[in-house]
Amino acid sequence: MFFASDNSGPAHPSVMNRVVAANTGHQMAYGNDTIMDEVRTRIREVFEAPEAAVYLVATGTAANVLALACYVQPWQTIYCSKVAHIEVDECNAPEFYSGGAKLKLIDTDNKMMPDALEAAIQGTPRGDVHSAQPGAVSITQVTERGSVHSLEELRNLTAVAKRHDLPVHLDGARFANAMVALGCSAADMSWKSGVDVVSFGGTKNGCMGVEAVVFFDPAKAWEFELRRKRGAHLFSKHRFLSAQMAGYLEDDTFIQIARQANENATYLAAGLKAAGATFLHEPQANMLFVSFPRRVHRTLAAAGARYERHGGMEGPDDTLISSRLVCDWSIGRDQIDTFLSHFQVP
Amino acid sequence: MFFASDNSGPAHPSVMNRVVAANTGHQMAYGNDTIMDEVRTRIREVFEAPEAAVYLVATGTAANVLALACYVQPWQTIYCSKVAHIEVDECNAPEFYSGGAKLKLIDTDNKMMPDALEAAIQGTPRGDVHSAQPGAVSITQVTERGSVHSLEELRNLTAVAKRHDLPVHLDGARFANAMVALGCSAADMSWKSGVDVVSFGGTKNGCMGVEAVVFFDPAKAWEFELRRKRGAHLFSKHRFLSAQMAGYLEDDTFIQIARQANENATYLAAGLKAAGATFLHEPQANMLFVSFPRRVHRTLAAAGARYERHGGMEGPDDTLISSRLVCDWSIGRDQIDTFLSHFQVP
Amino acid sequence: MFFASDNSGPAHPSVMNRVVAANTGHQMAYGNDTIMDEVRTRIREVFEAPEAAVYLVATGTAANVLALACYVQPWQTIYCSKVAHIEVDECNAPEFYSGGAKLKLIDTDNKMMPDALEAAIQGTPRGDVHSAQPGAVSITQVTERGSVHSLEELRNLTAVAKRHDLPVHLDGARFANAMVALGCSAADMSWKSGVDVVSFGGTKNGCMGVEAVVFFDPAKAWEFELRRKRGAHLFSKHRFLSAQMAGYLEDDTFIQIARQANENATYLAAGLKAAGATFLHEPQANMLFVSFPRRVHRTLAAAGARYERHGGMEGPDDTLISSRLVCDWSIGRDQIDTFLSHFQVP
Amino acid sequence: MFFASDNSGPAHPSVMNRVVAANTGHQMAYGNDTIMDEVRTRIREVFEAPEAAVYLVATGTAANVLALACYVQPWQTIYCSKVAHIEVDECNAPEFYSGGAKLKLIDTDNKMMPDALEAAIQGTPRGDVHSAQPGAVSITQVTERGSVHSLEELRNLTAVAKRHDLPVHLDGARFANAMVALGCSAADMSWKSGVDVVSFGGTKNGCMGVEAVVFFDPAKAWEFELRRKRGAHLFSKHRFLSAQMAGYLEDDTFIQIARQANENATYLAAGLKAAGATFLHEPQANMLFVSFPRRVHRTLAAAGARYERHGGMEGPDDTLISSRLVCDWSIGRDQIDTFLSHFQVP
Repeated sequence: MFFASDNSGPAHPSVMNRVVAANTGHQMAYGNDTIMDEVRTRIREVFEAPEAAVYLVATGTAANVLALACYVQPWQTIYCSKVAHIEVDECNAPEFYSGGAKLKLIDTDNKMMPDALEAAIQGTPRGDVHSAQPGAVSITQVTERGSVHSLEELRNLTAVAKRHDLPVHLDGARFANAMVALGCSAADMSWKSGVDVVSFGGTKNGCMGVEAVVFFDPAKAWEFELRRKRGAHLFSKHRFLSAQMAGYLEDDTFIQIARQANENATYLAAGLKAAGATFLHEPQANMLFVSFPRRVHRTLAAAGARYERHGGMEGPDDTLISSRLVCDWSIGRDQIDTFLSHFQVP
Repeated sequence: MFFASDNSGPAHPSVMNRVVAANTGHQMAYGNDTIMDEVRTRIREVFEAPEAAVYLVATGTAANVLALACYVQPWQTIYCSKVAHIEVDECNAPEFYSGGAKLKLIDTDNKMMPDALEAAIQGTPRGDVHSAQPGAVSITQVTERGSVHSLEELRNLTAVAKRHDLPVHLDGARFANAMVALGCSAADMSWKSGVDVVSFGGTKNGCMGVEAVVFFDPAKAWEFELRRKRGAHLFSKHRFLSAQMAGYLEDDTFIQIARQANENATYLAAGLKAAGATFLHEPQANMLFVSFPRRVHRTLAAAGARYERHGGMEGPDDTLISSRLVCDWSIGRDQIDTFLSHFQVP
Repeated sequence: MFFASDNSGPAHPSVMNRVVAANTGHQMAYGNDTIMDEVRTRIREVFEAPEAAVYLVATGTAANVLALACYVQPWQTIYCSKVAHIEVDECNAPEFYSGGAKLKLIDTDNKMMPDALEAAIQGTPRGDVHSAQPGAVSITQVTERGSVHSLEELRNLTAVAKRHDLPVHLDGARFANAMVALGCSAADMSWKSGVDVVSFGGTKNGCMGVEAVVFFDPAKAWEFELRRKRGAHLFSKHRFLSAQMAGYLEDDTFIQIARQANENATYLAAGLKAAGATFLHEPQANMLFVSFPRRVHRTLAAAGARYERHGGMEGPDDTLISSRLVCDWSIGRDQIDTFLSHFQVP
Repeated sequence: MFFASDNSGPAHPSVMNRVVAANTGHQMAYGNDTIMDEVRTRIREVFEAPEAAVYLVATGTAANVLALACYVQPWQTIYCSKVAHIEVDECNAPEFYSGGAKLKLIDTDNKMMPDALEAAIQGTPRGDVHSAQPGAVSITQVTERGSVHSLEELRNLTAVAKRHDLPVHLDGARFANAMVALGCSAADMSWKSGVDVVSFGGTKNGCMGVEAVVFFDPAKAWEFELRRKRGAHLFSKHRFLSAQMAGYLEDDTFIQIARQANENATYLAAGLKAAGATFLHEPQANMLFVSFPRRVHRTLAAAGARYERHGGMEGPDDTLISSRLVCDWSIGRDQIDTFLSHFQVP
């Protein structure tokens, strides 16, 4: 009963099998392996972007901060939500990689709102040398609270950015989960909606550790390659990154894995709703934000369930405690059923 | 016939098998996996250092620059040889991670000499605010030219560093190859010889992509953890780094792999010597630096041999051209024999 | 009628005279001038801190960011108010000098409140490697809105910091103005209230361009010297910084200048209140934040008055527009009277 | 008898008088003062460059590193001589401001030679992601050893840079001294010789602390302004930088001051030669590198002479010790004569 994170589960067999298959003979190092050629072609197909520059790194933070650093000068700002991964969970990596750019936080507990973005950009006066200058906008899809921007919402946000000539980065650590939720294409959710560069996640969705960075304008390609190497993120035995991504993309495996994760979450959410749990955000992909009484937490913990939680085990029985439950593809229905069997909110 | 680099071969089966075996069920993320506990214990055994702080990253450059950044302030210097990997092959990653420290190059084409190190340290006047201040010493073992410092040579170098109160980093991308060459223990070649922190290589010696950073003084542990995360080098599905290293260390596999690579190189070197090739450096581990006439290069290239080379294919037949030939564990004797069969220096 | 800033007025004669007097013969460069010895002694007296480390730089931003960089690691945070100069007016210099530390903004339009500071520190979970770690607290006195923390308010803030083992920086660009407002000593307003390092402003209070950085714990001295040089802020002809500060401190000139500025502001505020202006913050030192109708702005502009203003000259006559009026020591009563004569809020 | 440095003397009266004259009334801050308009116009005249972007900072290091940072990416290199001020005397400021670029040192004890520059550039392979990439060339005129590149020598160096599409920076801390030595114009010694950006020194040549950065291509202007502010080098009371530079440029005062300094050095050199001193470099501007026996040093020190020296006062009488003697404009003939009267090399 492991709902702590989608980065705690195993790699999907389709991914692992490609890795094992790749482990034969010699290959050119540093991204010049033949599997990477296949990956590049396939990502361009998936994104309907034949000119895109495509690179692989091993962590989501690396994908985000290397992509952003290509678009933001050290004296500029990155606009993101107050709960964005790049603000909350990357230990100043965006500041490090950008040479000291400033994150301007949009006050929200979930999605960034266009009006708030507009106000934030206007609050960093362009042309005033005392103020950090507007740099780029970063949007997370699926959000850190399990919500999914509709295509219209995405376009409304990127329209604000474009009006101010700002590039847009999409943190797509759960890109496939969002695609499945929206039933749209990768192109719809990226360049067709005004996104300039995507962190296309693999790790949380069934890979071992691989993310693609996809630049729709290949002008940034060489700078990215130098930044990746300088950041110590260029793999010598790159074939093992390529192989993961190849397995992930083959036969739309990434869609299947995400669908399985989302369906697990939907099933879990239905059970929790039926049992009376309160949802802080309406789940749309594979993450649930729910609160329930402390005594239920105690029961679940005793039964071996694992998940993130705000609030301790000690205290009054009925205090509502909020939790985050994440379903990856590998969590079985049996485990969800067991979890629900321990869940009673009277 | 792939002699281009030891980072172009496949992972060793013992390593890959552990990775596959690790791919089951859920594991705590970010280095809290149970396999990492095994790895930590095993590395402390191997290094006879029960207090050592042990971390894994995926690239050799990450190991080097994160380790060095823990010991060097931005206004200090790193002393290293002119041909050091950190100077030549890391695209300013040491400068990036250290916040702008300066590499002070010791003029040598191979090993750093103690007198030259002494002179370089004296040339950065401690206490003079105009000059970058002495920071740390970095030694590569096996050197970038295929040589191996004897334990005495190591101790002579670290003695200079200690006399100036400078910490010592060992770039051990080919640590096991050097151990095999010297027939010494990991402890002999590290803390017993005055080394403070080691980049203990796995990637070039049969792993997919994993290096350990071993601090003999655990005081740097927390700083390293923060630097690793901030550098975007903390893996969420860390079990896949741990599993590689576990397979690598189990039953001294890392020694066996290195021995195989070194023996391949010895066999190749003997054949080349017999055929009249000129050695620029006496090979001691798994790298050969040899020069031979351009027409031999042409023959070898036509036969499909791959290796690094200074000098083009076009030009007079008899011009001597220098090359680097690296043997990994997986290169077969048959391939070496084929290579040698094409090699004729009249 | 120049109320745009206290950095637009001339240097005080006591300051300029010392500069001219210093312009004779040779002096040791880089802070080894004999006038600096006098300055060091005098600042230690003024702050009742015989062990303090004392340095001079030429800009307030340099003082702030060099002081902070000595206390904050790149993976840490600086807690400051949302309107702090270091956040709003220094173009990412704090991020630059700290190597990418993050400013955590306390939501306030003026003073930082202890509860909000406490909440912000608790919101950066110490020991969680994903989150930036708590670093230092920076307080501005006089605040950017013209208010002055009482000694009790200062102590309440530093108590929060101390409870979390965080050092405290005081941005005292208008330190003397605050001392005059509180009628307290420099020691009262700094180390006796829990402050670890002060940017002691000279430029805005009658100098040409000089600020002192005063560390009450001299352990940071050598690091500061290296950071100052590396930041290109170490003056060769340092005597001209020393001389300004010597003239500023002699016979408590800095107090006299600040008193004159504050009295000018009090006089102006009284006139504006009498004329019906609305004060956004109660003025306590030498800055006024007032709003009045657009047509009054038009009249004042036509008469040649200069000051900062939010809102344009075009628009309905009666819209209230907010402005900042700053008095330096040199603004004459006649200019204030002329300004007030143009000011009519019916 | 102060020959330690040209940064130890007083400001020239023409400079100081303008500073005093500027100290009246209010002026717009941050470089918007009216005196800066005059300075900009005058520098464009002096350099015959009507489009040049012109900025002032207070230290030579700031001028150098801010100028270079506009031309060099963090993953690139700066080519300079092994004895360059930016390498030896700026405590890693170039690395700091460039975000970690690497200085590639040309091996020379004085001027950089075109062939050596060519070899160094070829040694940083463009397009190889492992290697730092070629960035910019920095030349010092007057060199740190008191020599002056002829215009032909300058052009030969910049031709190498241009052949590789690299921009050229000139560290002109002693620009005027070199102009006087060559009898050429500022334009001759800068853009007409292929220089892209100049650090035009004032401090060492009779100012209090001011240097101009002159970009012949104004495309870098806005970036420079942001970098200057972010570096904390934008003066609020900028008029005091402007006034120094205005006085320096008025009536070619800068030429007169430099001529006086050079003539002092010529007079001193003649006396030393007559007395049998050995010159390590032929003096061409205002610095002398001479060696003479230790007992002469003792006599001079006893008489109160100050200068830089390699080698201690204790030891055999006749050991030759090398020294640097610098003449500024203010050193009187009487002081030189006194110095020479103590100088006897038998």
